[in-house]
Amino acid sequence: MVVADSARSVRIALLGCGTVGSGVVKLLRSNAALLEARLGAQLELVGVADRSLRPDPDLGLSQALITRDAHALVIRPDVDIVVELFGGLEPAGSLIEAALAAGKDVVTANKALLAEQGERIFAAGAHYGRAIGFEASVGGGIPIIRTLRLGLAGDRQRAVYGIVNGTCNYILSTMAQRGSEFAQALAQAQQNGLAEADPSLDIEGHDAAHKLCLLVMLAFGVLLKPAQVYTEGITRITQQDVAYAGQLGFVIKLLAIAKEEAGAVEARVHPTMVPAGHLLASVSGAYNAIYIQGAALGATMYFGLGAGQMPTATAVVADIVELARMRRAGASASAQVLGYPFGALKPAQLKPMDDVICEYYLRFMAEDKPGVLGAIASVLGEHRISLASVIQHERAPTVSVPVVMRTHAASEHALKAALEEIGRQRIVHGAPVALRIEEQL
Amino acid sequence: MVVADSARSVRIALLGCGTVGSGVVKLLRSNAALLEARLGAQLELVGVADRSLRPDPDLGLSQALITRDAHALVIRPDVDIVVELFGGLEPAGSLIEAALAAGKDVVTANKALLAEQGERIFAAGAHYGRAIGFEASVGGGIPIIRTLRLGLAGDRQRAVYGIVNGTCNYILSTMAQRGSEFAQALAQAQQNGLAEADPSLDIEGHDAAHKLCLLVMLAFGVLLKPAQVYTEGITRITQQDVAYAGQLGFVIKLLAIAKEEAGAVEARVHPTMVPAGHLLASVSGAYNAIYIQGAALGATMYFGLGAGQMPTATAVVADIVELARMRRAGASASAQVLGYPFGALKPAQLKPMDDVICEYYLRFMAEDKPGVLGAIASVLGEHRISLASVIQHERAPTVSVPVVMRTHAASEHALKAALEEIGRQRIVHGAPVALRIEEQL
Repeated sequence: MVVADSARSVRIALLGCGTVGSGVVKLLRSNAALLEARLGAQLELVGVADRSLRPDPDLGLSQALITRDAHALVIRPDVDIVVELFGGLEPAGSLIEAALAAGKDVVTANKALLAEQGERIFAAGAHYGRAIGFEASVGGGIPIIRTLRLGLAGDRQRAVYGIVNGTCNYILSTMAQRGSEFAQALAQAQQNGLAEADPSLDIEGHDAAHKLCLLVMLAFGVLLKPAQVYTEGITRITQQDVAYAGQLGFVIKLLAIAKEEAGAVEARVHPTMVPAGHLLASVSGAYNAIYIQGAALGATMYFGLGAGQMPTATAVVADIVELARMRRAGASASAQVLGYPFGALKPAQLKPMDDVICEYYLRFMAEDKPGVLGAIASVLGEHRISLASVIQHERAPTVSVPVVMRTHAASEHALKAALEEIGRQRIVHGAPVALRIEEQL
Repeated sequence: MVVADSARSVRIALLGCGTVGSGVVKLLRSNAALLEARLGAQLELVGVADRSLRPDPDLGLSQALITRDAHALVIRPDVDIVVELFGGLEPAGSLIEAALAAGKDVVTANKALLAEQGERIFAAGAHYGRAIGFEASVGGGIPIIRTLRLGLAGDRQRAVYGIVNGTCNYILSTMAQRGSEFAQALAQAQQNGLAEADPSLDIEGHDAAHKLCLLVMLAFGVLLKPAQVYTEGITRITQQDVAYAGQLGFVIKLLAIAKEEAGAVEARVHPTMVPAGHLLASVSGAYNAIYIQGAALGATMYFGLGAGQMPTATAVVADIVELARMRRAGASASAQVLGYPFGALKPAQLKPMDDVICEYYLRFMAEDKPGVLGAIASVLGEHRISLASVIQHERAPTVSVPVVMRTHAASEHALKAALEEIGRQRIVHGAPVALRIEEQL
């Protein structure tokens, strides 16, 4: 930005000057005095790698700062911190490793990369004694990474429940508040810039699964891959089920859930019925929230905007400030990266999804004739699944009517077996709907 | 606890083994393996100063660890970190300064001390190059101190709204949910161990004012004393006003509020009407929450138990872990203490309370005769205070009836002048009730 005293400044290279990158440039400029006061040093942007070579002209970046050669930029001797905002696996991963090898600290918002290849990247950081800040990778501007690695470091975490995908939360909130069907709510999210043209990464739950891997690593000190997370998106949620959820006193949210007990971790992303009076139920629109249960602390919750240019940019700049401060203090900053020394992380011992215990909401479509309810209930009973409540409406006898049930706690295995049996006996029409309930959170 | 390898262990001295201190001892023991994994070193409790010389026998502390000579303990050469949980101004303040001078890092939960004398104590930390962790001083186990000094470091904070006193929040929640009067709700809080026998520090708002000083320091980088905070407690809140608040769509909370604009800080603690649909309104019982508005980030909220043995102990242990990690990494940890170098903090430029602009809820008791409402409204109008809504009930003409009004935004100065004028003209009976509304938070 201004010509900085290089003895005192911390020099930053930016990879990617799209939405979030532009936000970082704006924030470094508008908060320059504040950041210098916090740090006791200037932050100086010394290079921007952008594939287009044409960042937003409103940023007023000198053309001399801009390059297409990202690799040359990250190893430049005058760079202290590399901020990776390209996204995607490559070239982001190679560039980060090159930067670490060249003695740079790294800030990234790349949850897909860290979830898929974090083990290799964090190992490289530990090997070269450099730090990797990734606050922006989960929950946008909510400082949940720092909270888990530092703030809650005195306690043993029991469970994490996250609304970590703003697109899904916007769609589900719109369905609940306006009575829309999924397709309408998705179209509206796209109109409002809250969903991509190809929204599958969000609405199929994969983005939330990436983020859950990072939360699990920090909360439980174990390594987990996205492929190990049971992942179910929100595309099959109908207005009918949203409405029944409301009648039963619940709100449907896409939750990323992880629990740890006796060394075994369960990790799953799926639409979940949350009690309407719970704080998580009141998190609507594009907001995110992470609800954490600690053994000694009990419940805490962290709420805010989980995406967007400026919220995400604040998280990137917070990482820059912390890494710059550590660099100046001469600390081996890498010890702070994960809240654990890298070598202390072990592969997660995963609880098989079949062993996971939940309560369920079930909706069957069946002919409105005597005995259907009894037939369903007795198959469930044979699989030791008992019913907490039933909603059945009388309608015209020739048309399918919904039979809605809430079960007591049962294993996934038992539920799957029971639903298969109900299918085989042709008691109901079509595939039943099953949604997991989290009552005790 | 166990005999530790002194080359690898970080040695802790504990001042005070009451409720929170006992929680710290329990947590250090039950989480010993977890904390060692996080830190790559053992935490070893090497001494406990307790005035009674008789900590809870269930803790199983060796009598050899216990001393009455706190001063000798804090300067012992084998101590790395001093945890001050005596509370109060003295001897806590002198002991902390002695510990810093002897090269120890310090963890404390002492908000009264830091709010009143923080400037001297943080200066001592900076002078001796030692760190002071005080996560437990605000919001119990909610990591709000770390959030402000690290997590939100990339952004400029605009406003902080805190429910930071669990006693007051419990009392106000009980009044709203059960229809009790203040005295009943206070008695119930005392029965449940949520209020002291002498509850004045809490219910008069002083505890919240102490905490607000610390939040202001971290959020805005300025020094503020409790005496500079406009402080009004909850003792005059009646069931009648709680009920009218509900009718108007509000919930009454004791909020600690600070805003910064163009270098001027307003800081106030008072009962506040919060919109019933706002997240802060749903924070009930002994829970705390801090709601922060950032210029770039927008709103974030941090929620959890603000007091209690184990929640507070987790915050103390998180500080121990961070300071131990910094000590081992050789960082000059003190740079991290406030999110600013100590020298960057300036005295707050305080906005006079008279200049603060609020909307108000007003309740007058008046004879039910024509003209009263008009007389009140015209005095308010003369002071340029306009009305947003009025509730007036018809009752027996010989008895005072409540006249309830909601105003548009007006200055404290204008409101005070108008209420004095209404008093002088004897339009109403007794002192009117005025409560500030925060609609835009």
